[in-house]
Amino acid sequence: MKKPFVTLEKVKEIAEKYPTPFHIYDEKGIRENARRVKEAFSWNKGFREYFAVKATPNPFIINILKEYGCGCDCSSVTELMLAHELGFGDGSIMFSSNCTPAEEFRYAAEVGAIINLDDFTDVAGVEAALGYVPKTICCRYNPGGVFQMSNGIMDNPGDAKYGMSEEQMVEAFKILKSKGAEHFGIHAFLASNTVTNEYYPKLARELFALAVRIKKQTGVEISFINLSGGVGVAYEPDQTPNDIAVIGDGVHKVYDEIFGPEGMNDVAIYTEMGRFMLAPYGALITKVIHEKHIYKEYIGCDACASNLMRPAIYGAYHHITVLGKEDAPCDHKYDVTGSLCENSDKFAIDRMLPKIEIGDYLNIHDTGAHGHSMGYQYNGRLRSAEILLKEDGSFQLIRRAETPKDYFATLDFCDIVKGLL
Amino acid sequence: MKKPFVTLEKVKEIAEKYPTPFHIYDEKGIRENARRVKEAFSWNKGFREYFAVKATPNPFIINILKEYGCGCDCSSVTELMLAHELGFGDGSIMFSSNCTPAEEFRYAAEVGAIINLDDFTDVAGVEAALGYVPKTICCRYNPGGVFQMSNGIMDNPGDAKYGMSEEQMVEAFKILKSKGAEHFGIHAFLASNTVTNEYYPKLARELFALAVRIKKQTGVEISFINLSGGVGVAYEPDQTPNDIAVIGDGVHKVYDEIFGPEGMNDVAIYTEMGRFMLAPYGALITKVIHEKHIYKEYIGCDACASNLMRPAIYGAYHHITVLGKEDAPCDHKYDVTGSLCENSDKFAIDRMLPKIEIGDYLNIHDTGAHGHSMGYQYNGRLRSAEILLKEDGSFQLIRRAETPKDYFATLDFCDIVKGLL
Repeated sequence: MKKPFVTLEKVKEIAEKYPTPFHIYDEKGIRENARRVKEAFSWNKGFREYFAVKATPNPFIINILKEYGCGCDCSSVTELMLAHELGFGDGSIMFSSNCTPAEEFRYAAEVGAIINLDDFTDVAGVEAALGYVPKTICCRYNPGGVFQMSNGIMDNPGDAKYGMSEEQMVEAFKILKSKGAEHFGIHAFLASNTVTNEYYPKLARELFALAVRIKKQTGVEISFINLSGGVGVAYEPDQTPNDIAVIGDGVHKVYDEIFGPEGMNDVAIYTEMGRFMLAPYGALITKVIHEKHIYKEYIGCDACASNLMRPAIYGAYHHITVLGKEDAPCDHKYDVTGSLCENSDKFAIDRMLPKIEIGDYLNIHDTGAHGHSMGYQYNGRLRSAEILLKEDGSFQLIRRAETPKDYFATLDFCDIVKGLL
Repeated sequence: MKKPFVTLEKVKEIAEKYPTPFHIYDEKGIRENARRVKEAFSWNKGFREYFAVKATPNPFIINILKEYGCGCDCSSVTELMLAHELGFGDGSIMFSSNCTPAEEFRYAAEVGAIINLDDFTDVAGVEAALGYVPKTICCRYNPGGVFQMSNGIMDNPGDAKYGMSEEQMVEAFKILKSKGAEHFGIHAFLASNTVTNEYYPKLARELFALAVRIKKQTGVEISFINLSGGVGVAYEPDQTPNDIAVIGDGVHKVYDEIFGPEGMNDVAIYTEMGRFMLAPYGALITKVIHEKHIYKEYIGCDACASNLMRPAIYGAYHHITVLGKEDAPCDHKYDVTGSLCENSDKFAIDRMLPKIEIGDYLNIHDTGAHGHSMGYQYNGRLRSAEILLKEDGSFQLIRRAETPKDYFATLDFCDIVKGLL
């Protein structure tokens, strides 16, 4: 059973000040989880989680994670700007991008980010951009083929646009070393949103063995292994969530097994989790404003795919709780829709829920990552506010809702819609 | 063969002033097509195309279409604001929304939009919102079941969230008439992006017959039939584009056949095309900045899914021309990618193209509708400029590119990132 972290009473109180829809984040849950992540890898003295900023690029949230030693995983200049502005740098930013323009390499170096090279051509590219090879550098690995776990979850790295082959990695490290690099890392992302404690240990086994082979072939000592993201969350209520303590232990065991005999006991483990750090600790709160009875029963709410695209574009499941009806029987079947002129704008299809009335508040679960950040303004819809539910039960606006003026902002260079600006 | 409407030489000239990526629109093509649409329905004296603003909510483009008598089809308050600001109103705006809040009905009425009721509950809803029933009103029809065309294209209106059943339409018109409505319309959207001249005539046949039945059952005279959108474009080079003259003739024939015997010769035809009006007359221009050789050959460009989401979210085909290599043999197979940290961020997969060099400009075709307007800022990526290529060969900025300041704008209420604002 998924339980909302916010009550109907609290939502009503917030909605008086900040109208629905809004995303709300649970400070308590975020802190507890960040603490668990830190503990799970405390056996590794260099461990650092670089929070994947793309998941939830909110500075208030990032500052909370910072208290637990998290750095920032950035993929673009604006994300780097945000991390830099919040005081990250000197190794606490990882720049994991692809198809990277020279100016982005330059800016990353300027703010003290560790650059993760996605491609073999970036070895020459980063040197051309900077005029030197950074002292600390990371290369992204892609083993090709298929990556399969015992529960059947699989992904196809060979079809993914990311990373270098082993041969390219070896060549890259040789060149980077010869050009003056001193600290080397390996990065790989081989599967997305895995809900199994097996993924990180299995990935770690591949990357640790690769580090050993690279050392033997090139003399390069690997300083850190970046397991990237891919640790998922249980969006569906019958899934068993990942246990980060078990995952950390699993990686530890593989670490001792592979690095122990090689005497490689100083290799730091890095992670770049976004979803696992945040998804369950965010919810989209939306008010029911419409009901429709035709060939199906529809419930219409004041949020739409602009606020949360995952159901519309991936058909992704997000659990819904009708606030105040947490214990009512789910004996009505509804499509829960937004107002976008796109038929895919449905938060749920044929979902069994309690009887819903206009004015009810829906808690759409697990929107803390890739929720607000993936929003768009299609149909002229505006993106919502973000609210932090603090540990003491109070709440704080951490991003304001967009206004029409924001929507028209890129027409401000001329007079054509001056009445709207 | 798809041919770009812009040359390499012109693109280079534009890029000196407005760096890539940008969307470019072909004024000449837009005007010629708008003229063809007007002519195709000139047999119907009340005809009006209400341009679907959501496709390309750019005021400069909308003003061009206005010269050809087009109105605006709006689906939200911001779209209504835009249309109103540009001088539309008094029947030249259609408000086709769903799950509509009372304040949106009020604003639509205020700016003189014709309100298209999506649902039976909106009959009471619009009266409650306005305090009256508008003199001119439209109801959206959903026949349920499956809508199939002879070429196999089909859609499932019965699963769509839109419209009213026939029974509900009849009841709605009775109520609306009793409450003082005087001019009535019927609207339906039953299939998306149809590339067949058959769709509108087939839809028209259903709606005209419905209008006759409604007249018989309720005494309500239908003033207009809104065929909505759904007339598509040939994204793939081997598709035969729709011929709007043939489509207009097809609707004319059905009109005479069904309305003739009933003496219903004053019924106006409305359309709400977006894609057909604009898609082929826009292109996304992007520069090749990266190449990658691994398990596949990749070409990376400076645009990404932020600029054009259709390939990433629908797997949609967009033709690509390498500018300056229009006649070169397509003997290289590439994945053409953007820089987003999403593996789906590929404009083309296994596409045969001429040999591509870094610095080449790619013309991604048919982005004139649902291109820029569907963009998002995921990964902190910024949306591009829009440029109008004018009939005289000059060019004009019609939307500026976003800046980091735009990206951080909704944090302007506090000090947390004040250095970025």
